[in-house]
Amino acid sequence: MTPVPALRTDGGEAPVRVLLDVDPGHDDALAILVAAGLPGVEIAAITTVGGNQTLEKVTRNALAVATVAGLEGTVVAAGCDRPLVTGAVITDPETHGASGLDGPVLPEPTLPLDPRHGVDVIVETVMAAEPGTLTLVPTGPLTNIATALRREPAIAERVAEVVLMGGGYTKGNVTPAAEFNIYTDPEAAHVVFSAPWRVTMVGLDLTHQALATPDVHERFRAMGTRAGGFVVDMLNFFGPAYRAKQGFDSPPVHDVCALVRAVAPDLVTVRPGHVDVELHGQHTRGMTVTDLQGRQGRDLDHLVATDLDVRRFWDLVTGAVARLP
Amino acid sequence: MTPVPALRTDGGEAPVRVLLDVDPGHDDALAILVAAGLPGVEIAAITTVGGNQTLEKVTRNALAVATVAGLEGTVVAAGCDRPLVTGAVITDPETHGASGLDGPVLPEPTLPLDPRHGVDVIVETVMAAEPGTLTLVPTGPLTNIATALRREPAIAERVAEVVLMGGGYTKGNVTPAAEFNIYTDPEAAHVVFSAPWRVTMVGLDLTHQALATPDVHERFRAMGTRAGGFVVDMLNFFGPAYRAKQGFDSPPVHDVCALVRAVAPDLVTVRPGHVDVELHGQHTRGMTVTDLQGRQGRDLDHLVATDLDVRRFWDLVTGAVARLP
Amino acid sequence: MTPVPALRTDGGEAPVRVLLDVDPGHDDALAILVAAGLPGVEIAAITTVGGNQTLEKVTRNALAVATVAGLEGTVVAAGCDRPLVTGAVITDPETHGASGLDGPVLPEPTLPLDPRHGVDVIVETVMAAEPGTLTLVPTGPLTNIATALRREPAIAERVAEVVLMGGGYTKGNVTPAAEFNIYTDPEAAHVVFSAPWRVTMVGLDLTHQALATPDVHERFRAMGTRAGGFVVDMLNFFGPAYRAKQGFDSPPVHDVCALVRAVAPDLVTVRPGHVDVELHGQHTRGMTVTDLQGRQGRDLDHLVATDLDVRRFWDLVTGAVARLP
Amino acid sequence: MTPVPALRTDGGEAPVRVLLDVDPGHDDALAILVAAGLPGVEIAAITTVGGNQTLEKVTRNALAVATVAGLEGTVVAAGCDRPLVTGAVITDPETHGASGLDGPVLPEPTLPLDPRHGVDVIVETVMAAEPGTLTLVPTGPLTNIATALRREPAIAERVAEVVLMGGGYTKGNVTPAAEFNIYTDPEAAHVVFSAPWRVTMVGLDLTHQALATPDVHERFRAMGTRAGGFVVDMLNFFGPAYRAKQGFDSPPVHDVCALVRAVAPDLVTVRPGHVDVELHGQHTRGMTVTDLQGRQGRDLDHLVATDLDVRRFWDLVTGAVARLP
Ligand SMILES: [Ca+2]
Ligand SMILES: [Ca+2]
Ligand SMILES: [Ca+2]
Ligand SMILES: [Ca+2]
Repeated sequence: MTPVPALRTDGGEAPVRVLLDVDPGHDDALAILVAAGLPGVEIAAITTVGGNQTLEKVTRNALAVATVAGLEGTVVAAGCDRPLVTGAVITDPETHGASGLDGPVLPEPTLPLDPRHGVDVIVETVMAAEPGTLTLVPTGPLTNIATALRREPAIAERVAEVVLMGGGYTKGNVTPAAEFNIYTDPEAAHVVFSAPWRVTMVGLDLTHQALATPDVHERFRAMGTRAGGFVVDMLNFFGPAYRAKQGFDSPPVHDVCALVRAVAPDLVTVRPGHVDVELHGQHTRGMTVTDLQGRQGRDLDHLVATDLDVRRFWDLVTGAVARLP
Repeated sequence: MTPVPALRTDGGEAPVRVLLDVDPGHDDALAILVAAGLPGVEIAAITTVGGNQTLEKVTRNALAVATVAGLEGTVVAAGCDRPLVTGAVITDPETHGASGLDGPVLPEPTLPLDPRHGVDVIVETVMAAEPGTLTLVPTGPLTNIATALRREPAIAERVAEVVLMGGGYTKGNVTPAAEFNIYTDPEAAHVVFSAPWRVTMVGLDLTHQALATPDVHERFRAMGTRAGGFVVDMLNFFGPAYRAKQGFDSPPVHDVCALVRAVAPDLVTVRPGHVDVELHGQHTRGMTVTDLQGRQGRDLDHLVATDLDVRRFWDLVTGAVARLP
Repeated sequence: MTPVPALRTDGGEAPVRVLLDVDPGHDDALAILVAAGLPGVEIAAITTVGGNQTLEKVTRNALAVATVAGLEGTVVAAGCDRPLVTGAVITDPETHGASGLDGPVLPEPTLPLDPRHGVDVIVETVMAAEPGTLTLVPTGPLTNIATALRREPAIAERVAEVVLMGGGYTKGNVTPAAEFNIYTDPEAAHVVFSAPWRVTMVGLDLTHQALATPDVHERFRAMGTRAGGFVVDMLNFFGPAYRAKQGFDSPPVHDVCALVRAVAPDLVTVRPGHVDVELHGQHTRGMTVTDLQGRQGRDLDHLVATDLDVRRFWDLVTGAVARLP
Repeated sequence: MTPVPALRTDGGEAPVRVLLDVDPGHDDALAILVAAGLPGVEIAAITTVGGNQTLEKVTRNALAVATVAGLEGTVVAAGCDRPLVTGAVITDPETHGASGLDGPVLPEPTLPLDPRHGVDVIVETVMAAEPGTLTLVPTGPLTNIATALRREPAIAERVAEVVLMGGGYTKGNVTPAAEFNIYTDPEAAHVVFSAPWRVTMVGLDLTHQALATPDVHERFRAMGTRAGGFVVDMLNFFGPAYRAKQGFDSPPVHDVCALVRAVAPDLVTVRPGHVDVELHGQHTRGMTVTDLQGRQGRDLDHLVATDLDVRRFWDLVTGAVARLP
């Protein structure tokens, strides 16, 4: 088995703690599996948000994936069911199917759904953690994170960082200018990018480097495990769907890139940048307008992912899944 | 004492239950006193929101006013401290002073602050009430109400109605197009006006009819009560401040109009209308664009207050305050 | 015959010279007739602009109306056929019919169409006039005027003033916020209102006071002239059309009000104001956002018409038409 | 001397006719020189527009450059002095100096300025040409071109094509989203991109490949001609200015790329695309939102330059300048 690259634990004992805020979604699902399979990573909680599919569906999917990942005992809670301001749920059944996770047969969840609201789980988990020890990894629309910030502004100083999948600095996918997670809830994204914390934007420029090519597909297939088979079943749906809708030969596993940046930052090169979310444009609403130069006096207060170490990325990802039953 | 006009209880036993969501503020304060003094009105809770002053200040003011009103036992809870999306608190010290309620000496509160978040109080109070029995009366920025709607969308069907002070159909005050409560948090206002409930907009066109003229002032003074004196002290600050800033001879008591419409609807004439909150304009952000005709196919789903029965209004208001100690 | 009120010639010899920029349109047509019938008024030129109907139709209508008015020798020239930026011609056949001037039988024009572009006619006429002696009276979309300003910025200092029909300070008609002439070409309106000249905005708040009631109708009918009959035929179409579309008992003759303000200013009360044209709003595009207070530091650089002397207005208007053959 | 690459004349006799609409500006100036030096290219006219500097300055510069280029007999006319709607001239003295063409000593012009307005020259030149024989090459703000389109819409069918320098599909320079020529007059750009003609957008993604490196600089220097020396003097200012402002080691000669695409299209690879100019965004105004996929149903009606044949480009450019005296 390919050895897992060193995580950012610096040889220390403490695991990397992440809270996954997700809308599974095939790439969210793979991100959960990878997080579960990495020995130095602890999932503090999983919260769900309406996005790739309705809140009800993505929550069921999250529980099913957590079951496949053997995450018994992990908190899974449902958060916001619609965008902060527009209220208009935009789903993407073309890419993720009617269930939000078409392809694999989903097991009956063995985990209960936490009765708390996902936003409360985020606030309580962050505030209960030691300062600087918990990383938020949102890989869906940012509604939960924005709402948590408003509910308890103090979370901004308490998290280690926010590493999110969303946006891009040269392109979009829903529109030429805007990426799905940001386009779906631009106001929430604005709240997140303008809060006093450091955000690492893992956007399309980065994630389009993380393509599940046939040889990657074969590495999952060769595992012969339940989890490996689950990933293969996901890719068998997600690959053709992505090809049909977006014209990719092999599908990019966007959300996994954010998780990998959070837990193994060496694999993702970043640059300082300023990100403004366009809320008012006719053709640009939901665009992450990114300044990497800082010539107009903007503070380069965030990080923008630019380059993926593709080989080590897939070694990490397949190595993690291979550890699962 | 002037007899209080018949409330909308239609002679029945049930009191009118209102939840006051406020940012006191002189007119919010008077609205609380009036609600407290009307025999057929029950205050289900008071929640506060950052607006005329910071959340901390308006919450302290609310507790002090509740003390003057003798509202021991009433839930008072603090809600959101900043607008939903912009996060930028806009206060109005020119009109309401550095404290948010300059003029009277504020007593030490005899009520405790409820430890719950104001948004939770709104959600829990509405969901605990019998359907159609509780009216929300927001008289500050709509941040709490919008957040409650997102937190628990079911409140939209459960309340009797929403009667808010905000907006206008021919004018603004912060800008030529926008009124303070809406301008301060336009996205929250959009959430409130686009929710599936009936909103009665008591805006500037109505509230500029409710002027605390010298004879009104004299009626408060003549009461010789603590509450009457408190109102006089408020008007002694609010009147000149309003004259200096807005050019009114006598100050309009905006928020009281929303309360009065909620509890004595006969005193406020309304028309059906559709309200869009402008979020994107350069000169019109925060405007309540009001269609009273419905000729472009818009659903006239809300009510817009147009005419105040001025004499009965002041009879009701002074009568209520006169009942307080 | 009703005596014509004194014009602003102050008893002097010089006539009031106006350039009419029009899109006839029933009310434009009546404005032309009134200008032609007033003894102290000289029409320097008539230019047409796409608006109530296509440029081709309104130009034909202008020539026909000039024929009825006996304006042989007056320059009539066609200007811009579409809005400055959008390029999308918006016509109003519901109000003005398929021809733009349904109702009367239009005579064959006895005037030729000037071969010059209307914008050149505006520039050349203004620049040839003595400074401060020519008033522009635009009563259609402001495309020609804006284009003329860009072509020759010096016209801004040379005209006496601009008295336009358009906009409003409390209402719209195409949308709740925007009036037809401004809504149709907001960018042109912005150019006109931001140029260094004084604009008098005669908007809906004023023009809705100029209703062609049955007794007015009767006064035209009783003239027994060709021009009087032409007006009656126009009102016979325009009245019911306006009633059906906008719900008015009697139709407002908008454009005539601008002409009257230009030539007999005493009949129209104005207030200083600042006007911003909203270009970017979702619900407010084309709104004339009007500041009559100047409290936010805006320069009250224009005039806004507020009150019409209705009796003298109709005396002037009917008196003028009665002078025509 | 490096042979000039074959132009698109296909071996035929007819020269490529271009109308240059410019705001010189160093790269405009070089584009004029290159056009003048290419044997198969005929300059139908040069029109100027306010941009890099005021209209007065760029017009003087254009005449001086035409003098250096030996363009006696060529029409040079001044067009619009300010943007279509905003009216706010934005110049770039940091890049082009106080004169708009700092560096070389400008000769006294030997050409007269055509007395006509530049927009009239554009319209008359296009309408006088055989259909499909004249290419417009705008390398400044698009004010003149937009105004010409509104003045005479028929030019859209009559030109061969429009090859403009402006915009970009992944980046801006004035802001992270917008390039100077488009940012300066977005409404004009909207008019140009939405007209029924084919536009080739030569934007920053292409022009940043055309860097005047030291060896290019040396090739101009080695010519020992007046024109070569003029270019060297230009680069001696433009290079350091560009380095200081934008951080480039060698300056990109943007406008020359549009000219080269117009006359030697093989040197510039293009892709079909749709371009929307953002007029309303807070962070994106003036962005050329480019769709190269057409997946949302947009018509890929224009061409977008993507790749420059750098070696042949500089051979063409230096070869052309070398032919000048
Ligand atoms: Ca996702
Ligand atoms: Ca208030
Ligand atoms: Ca008209
Ligand atoms: Ca240029």
